Amino acid sequence: MTRGALALLIHGGTDNWSPERWKARFDQVCHDRRVLQLPQASFNPADVHYAAVWKPVPGELAAFPNLKVIFNLGAGVDALMADKTLPSVPLVRVAVDDLTNRMMEYVVLHVLMHHRQEPYLRESQRNGRWAPKYQWPASAICVGIMGIGTLGARAAHVLQQIGFRVVGWSRSRKQVEGIECFAGGEQFDAFLRRTDILVCLLPLTADTRGILNRDVFGKLNRASPLGAPVLINAGRGGLQNEADILASLDGTLGGVSLDVFSREPVPADSPFWTHPKVVLTPHNAADTDPGAISRYVAEQIARFEAGGALENVVDRARGY
Amino acid sequence: MTRGALALLIHGGTDNWSPERWKARFDQVCHDRRVLQLPQASFNPADVHYAAVWKPVPGELAAFPNLKVIFNLGAGVDALMADKTLPSVPLVRVAVDDLTNRMMEYVVLHVLMHHRQEPYLRESQRNGRWAPKYQWPASAICVGIMGIGTLGARAAHVLQQIGFRVVGWSRSRKQVEGIECFAGGEQFDAFLRRTDILVCLLPLTADTRGILNRDVFGKLNRASPLGAPVLINAGRGGLQNEADILASLDGTLGGVSLDVFSREPVPADSPFWTHPKVVLTPHNAADTDPGAISRYVAEQIARFEAGGALENVVDRARGY
Repeated sequence: MTRGALALLIHGGTDNWSPERWKARFDQVCHDRRVLQLPQASFNPADVHYAAVWKPVPGELAAFPNLKVIFNLGAGVDALMADKTLPSVPLVRVAVDDLTNRMMEYVVLHVLMHHRQEPYLRESQRNGRWAPKYQWPASAICVGIMGIGTLGARAAHVLQQIGFRVVGWSRSRKQVEGIECFAGGEQFDAFLRRTDILVCLLPLTADTRGILNRDVFGKLNRASPLGAPVLINAGRGGLQNEADILASLDGTLGGVSLDVFSREPVPADSPFWTHPKVVLTPHNAADTDPGAISRYVAEQIARFEAGGALENVVDRARGY
Repeated sequence: MTRGALALLIHGGTDNWSPERWKARFDQVCHDRRVLQLPQASFNPADVHYAAVWKPVPGELAAFPNLKVIFNLGAGVDALMADKTLPSVPLVRVAVDDLTNRMMEYVVLHVLMHHRQEPYLRESQRNGRWAPKYQWPASAICVGIMGIGTLGARAAHVLQQIGFRVVGWSRSRKQVEGIECFAGGEQFDAFLRRTDILVCLLPLTADTRGILNRDVFGKLNRASPLGAPVLINAGRGGLQNEADILASLDGTLGGVSLDVFSREPVPADSPFWTHPKVVLTPHNAADTDPGAISRYVAEQIARFEAGGALENVVDRARGY
C-alpha cells in the first residue's frame, strides 16, 4: 500500500446509504488506495489518512492517529460537530452540483405545490368536487429563502425564472446575482414581512436551533395573496419548533412542507402524518448520489496530496 | 357614439368568468367605445364592430351585420370553430404572457410532481409510512412536449433550467432555441420513444382529436427510469381517449395529470376522481386574467383602426 487508506464510516439511514454501495463506488475512483469499509477485521488504524463518513458513532474517528482529512458525505455537519472527540483535522462537507440540483428540485416543487393550491385540489379530488378557486400568478408571490448559500441561490434563480419574487436572508451578508439579500438579526424582520412562502435551508448551529418558531411565523406577510403564509423546511429538524408549527397551522401559517424532523423516522403517533395542512416527505429532498460524491472526494484527496487547498472546509467556530 | 361598439358574449364557466367582472375591465380600457354586456335590452346590432367572446352560443355572432373582428378570450378556439354560422371575419385568439406563464407553472409543477414521486409520497403519508425510494435526478428524465408553440416553448425552457432533458413535437416544424424539435407524422414515433413524461398542449383540431391513445402511450420510453411513462394533458379533453387512459394505467402509463376532460365538470361517477394514479385538476391550468386580456384586446383594436395588422389571427383551414 503506497498511499494512506480511506476509511468509510457509514451508519444509519435508508437504502441509499447501503455501505456496500458506497464501497463499490469508492473502489472505482480510488484505484491506488485501500478503501476500508468499517468495521473490518484486519487493518492498522495508523494507515488511515482519510475518513468519509455518514453519521459516524461519536468517538469512532478518534481511533485514527494519522487522520488528515474528514469528508462528510452530505451537506449538513451538525451531527458530526456534536462529537466532542472529533479530531481537529480539516472537515470537508460535500458540495456537488448533483446535491444542489436535487435540493432545487425539491424547493421548486414545494413552492409550486403551495402556490398552485395542491393541498386544496387533492382534497377536492378526494371529495369528487370540481371547484376551482382564483389562482394568483407567481408574480404575486414572494418566496423568502433563509440560508442563501450555494443551495439557496440555485433554487432562488429557478424560482425567479418561473416568475416568483425572491428574497434571501443569511447570517452574514451574501451577494447573489439578481436576488435582494437581507442579512443578520437587524434585517430579519424586514425579510420576513416581505415573505409569502418561507423556505429554510439553514445549517443547524447553536444560533439557528429552533429559529422556525411562532414569533417568526407571526412576522411573515399577513396580507399574503395565499391567504396565510407557508413554511417549507428542507434544512434540519432542529431548526424548527414543532409544537409551534402545529399550533400556527390554525391560521398563522396556511400550510407547511417538512422534509426534516426532530425525530426521524417521524413517530407513528405524530400529528404531522395526519394534519391536512402538512405535506410530509421522508428526508429525501436531496439524496446523496454515491457516484458524484465519491468522485468529488477522490478529486479533493488528489489535490490535497499534490499540495493544493481543500474546498468547503467547515469553519468550526461558525459551525458550518 | 363615435366608434363601433364592443359586444361581450361570455357564457358558462367558473367564477373567473363572471360577465360583470369582464365588463368592468373592458370599460376601463375602452374609454371612448360602448361596451355591451349581452344580453342587453337596448342596442342596435349594426353598431357592433367587435365581439369578445367565451363559449358563445352557436349562431349568436351571426346577429351582427357590421362585425369586423372576433376576439376569443382564451387560447383554444375549437368550440368557436365548431359554429358553422361563425361570421367570416378575422378571429383572434389571445396570447398574453400571463396565460403563457400560468401554463408553464402548471406544466413545471406536474412534471416535478411525477418526477419526485408525489403520488407515492402522499400515499405513504396517508398510511403513516416513512419509506423513501430511490430518487432519480431531473437529468435522467426526458420530457416530451406535444405542441411546442408559445406556451410549450416557455415550459420547455424552464424545465431545461431545472435539469430535465426536453424534446418537442409539433405538426409543422418549429424552431425553438436550445430544444430538439420533432415534426409531423414521420417523426412522431422517434419523439415518443425518447419521452418519459409526455406533456400535451396541442390545439384541438380534426387532426389531433383522440391523439392521446393507447397506441401512442405504448410507444413512450419503455425503459423509463420512472418505471412507466407519465402523461400530462393541459390542452383539451377532446385530445384524449379516456377509456384508453384508464386501461393504460395498468402499467403502460405510471401516472397521469389531467386538467381537461371530454365532459367538464367531470361526472360524479367518473373513475378519474378516484383512480390512485390520476392527478385531476378542474381545468385551472391557465386561468385567463381579465386585466391582461382586456388590455390586449383594446390595444389590438386601436392598432386595427389605425390601419395596422391584427396579431394571432386563427388560420381557419388549420383550425388554430
